[in-house]
Amino acid sequence: MKPTPSKTHHHFPLPSSSFPTGFVLGGLHVGVKKKAGVPDLAVILSTSEHPTSAAACFTRNAFKAAPVLVSDHVIKMNGGYARAVVVNSGCANAVTGKQGLDDAWAMVMATDALLPSKSSEFEQETLVMSTGVIGQNLPISKIVAGIQSQATNEATCVLGSDFSAWERAAQAFMTTDTFPKLRARTFSIGGVEYRLAGMDKGAGMIHPNMGPAGTTFSSGPKQLHATLLGCIMTDAAVSPRSLQSALTYAVDRSFNSISVDGDMSTNDSIYVLANGAASNGVIIDEETDKEAYEVFKRELTDFAADLAKLVVRDGEGATKFVTVTVKNAPSYKDAHNIASRISTSALVKTALYGEDANWGRILAATGSVPLQPSSSGAEPPVIDPTKVNVTFIPSDGTSPLPVLVNGEPEKVDEVRAKEILSLEDFEVTVDLGMEGEGEAQYWTCDFSYEYVRINGDYRS
Amino acid sequence: MKPTPSKTHHHFPLPSSSFPTGFVLGGLHVGVKKKAGVPDLAVILSTSEHPTSAAACFTRNAFKAAPVLVSDHVIKMNGGYARAVVVNSGCANAVTGKQGLDDAWAMVMATDALLPSKSSEFEQETLVMSTGVIGQNLPISKIVAGIQSQATNEATCVLGSDFSAWERAAQAFMTTDTFPKLRARTFSIGGVEYRLAGMDKGAGMIHPNMGPAGTTFSSGPKQLHATLLGCIMTDAAVSPRSLQSALTYAVDRSFNSISVDGDMSTNDSIYVLANGAASNGVIIDEETDKEAYEVFKRELTDFAADLAKLVVRDGEGATKFVTVTVKNAPSYKDAHNIASRISTSALVKTALYGEDANWGRILAATGSVPLQPSSSGAEPPVIDPTKVNVTFIPSDGTSPLPVLVNGEPEKVDEVRAKEILSLEDFEVTVDLGMEGEGEAQYWTCDFSYEYVRINGDYRS
Repeated sequence: MKPTPSKTHHHFPLPSSSFPTGFVLGGLHVGVKKKAGVPDLAVILSTSEHPTSAAACFTRNAFKAAPVLVSDHVIKMNGGYARAVVVNSGCANAVTGKQGLDDAWAMVMATDALLPSKSSEFEQETLVMSTGVIGQNLPISKIVAGIQSQATNEATCVLGSDFSAWERAAQAFMTTDTFPKLRARTFSIGGVEYRLAGMDKGAGMIHPNMGPAGTTFSSGPKQLHATLLGCIMTDAAVSPRSLQSALTYAVDRSFNSISVDGDMSTNDSIYVLANGAASNGVIIDEETDKEAYEVFKRELTDFAADLAKLVVRDGEGATKFVTVTVKNAPSYKDAHNIASRISTSALVKTALYGEDANWGRILAATGSVPLQPSSSGAEPPVIDPTKVNVTFIPSDGTSPLPVLVNGEPEKVDEVRAKEILSLEDFEVTVDLGMEGEGEAQYWTCDFSYEYVRINGDYRS
Repeated sequence: MKPTPSKTHHHFPLPSSSFPTGFVLGGLHVGVKKKAGVPDLAVILSTSEHPTSAAACFTRNAFKAAPVLVSDHVIKMNGGYARAVVVNSGCANAVTGKQGLDDAWAMVMATDALLPSKSSEFEQETLVMSTGVIGQNLPISKIVAGIQSQATNEATCVLGSDFSAWERAAQAFMTTDTFPKLRARTFSIGGVEYRLAGMDKGAGMIHPNMGPAGTTFSSGPKQLHATLLGCIMTDAAVSPRSLQSALTYAVDRSFNSISVDGDMSTNDSIYVLANGAASNGVIIDEETDKEAYEVFKRELTDFAADLAKLVVRDGEGATKFVTVTVKNAPSYKDAHNIASRISTSALVKTALYGEDANWGRILAATGSVPLQPSSSGAEPPVIDPTKVNVTFIPSDGTSPLPVLVNGEPEKVDEVRAKEILSLEDFEVTVDLGMEGEGEAQYWTCDFSYEYVRINGDYRS
């Protein structure tokens, strides 16, 4: 049995100027988790004088947790504005019935009270997230007391805007994560410099499929636990509709393109707040300035992918980080479906763990995915096996290794194959050679003994 | 790490009268497998004077192996008649290009020559199956010589119709299987007694999705390996169209309702031959005698389910045999999709291995399945979490254990839960409480360290 490598994908300390302006945040221990001092509550506030737009993508699972339903409601009621996010780890507030909804609302109200000035326009301005064990009620009085202790006039307030404030907030997201997941980047549009920063968490029950806000509220009050949470902040100003459309696009190509174990959770949520603190009055909007919008969308997508990949790197029991690229499929959707199937195949993932360039399992997974019927209702296209290529691409810049060329298996140099497969990072490319140029990437990890140990022993 | 239990689901020696009349068959060693004496070739011939109808279900994988394409062609050309089946294990004849097709045809022709009298009506009368390693050509001259050695006038002929002949044939199907899988049963329609008998094989790459014959031939010539093979014989007479419709129905509720690892193979094939040797001239047909047809369909379905369950019992690394039942879904298809998702969830399967009654993972898997849109194009129905029940049912006849009742988690008696989960066999029932009464069963096993060892080390 191979040891699981130690995981050290650290964000290095960053200057405060790396982070978007107009946010204060922090992480603290309020007692949801037993171990003293471990952060289990994050509070994130926008202090910008500009309107703070907010967008979200939530799990498509039929059993949605209370914080999902409550946050979706807030965004919908406000027409895409919110100024705060509150997050607890250690308890998912899931399958907790009416009490769970009341508790989620209590977190929202308490956090609303921390905002610099109450808005007359909105009833609530806070989004909420929870992650951890299920079927238990939140220790809500401890949580509310912890939130209240963060009023800026209190000596107990830990909120700040430097690196350590951001890092402590990221730590408060963690459950089975082995490291906090925090990233920041700078970009500019029309000569104005903006910043993006954010954190996420997740290690198991990771196969998100999230749709835009405003689509969840028809669900009932009983819910379950979940494991992908992410929150992204920017000091750009973005109209609510464009923030939502950019996030939906970005999530499809980032968080909805990762898999640890193929299991979709019930609390998966990604939020983005855009507070306009650096905007100089320019509001990014798809209809008024398509070009600026496209730049923002690309930056957000790349950033979301960076955060999403951290979750795969920290996948339960993972020893490999593998990029799966599917090319020349009839459509993006087909490419994405195939990349997803390869990325969740137990046979592919155990072969990756075994460092075995097993193209047969990759091809079997590829062929098991039904292609989408064309919009005209015609029969779906058919893969021509004689046009399919499978290649392993090492991450160290050395030569790729074709293992299947136009449907013909190559005489594979086993020594070279072992060299590539023994890397921690590599890519598998499946080129279907079909018309349509659909291309998608997925990020996955291997299936190890350690995964079985963690999930065979762990009682959620 | 728990030891894998020894697997002893033996068919006991059965009298020859248990088996359908009018078939001779046997298994022999021809040298596809290295180890001397291990059966690697099965030959099955109908010697009935009546027409022998044949039906098949083949993998829906886009990469279909040569024996799949050839057998589909034979059935199609003959309008649903075939008198022989030839099977080799040890080499899947997959991703072998034109040579692979030539080899599959050579097996067909050699077996045709064993049939008592050449038919003037059909060019070929044999179906073929292969299973084993991929990307290698068959040792075709050894195989053809082995087939030829079975001519009834040869001293080397091992074909017979007693228990040991059936058992040797079943042994010749095996690859990573730990025991041969052979079953027989008797049934009667209108006072006439018929027999069903058959064998199958499979242990990994098991998540079949097979469709009826006549739908595969558009695929190209390059293929892959596969792992579920089954062959069922009866001495009833059944019209080709009714034999195919009964088999399609049966396969959906048996072989298409099992999962070992969620990976669909490229050679999956189930054949049925009905030789009419016990028929007294009565031909079962859906249109001429619906009632008789329904009895036959039910018998075939139950029998196919018995064979399918043997594959799950022999699942790679499996320590549990778990029946997943989904009830009161909007449709059979919805129930089947949900049962499939639960049965393939890595989190559910590792919890089963850990003997953990983790209803949270079961519910998350349930909720991750999109329900089918109604035929009228209306929005798909939505699960009401307050109507969902999850129950563990022990196989020993003792009381079921409800863990979720109307969406409320029960205070579970952990000692009792452990008692049930520590059984080798038990059932998980998810009752969605929706209108429509869709119900489906799936059979699955757990995910163990041993599964990772087998598939992390094994090079196919």
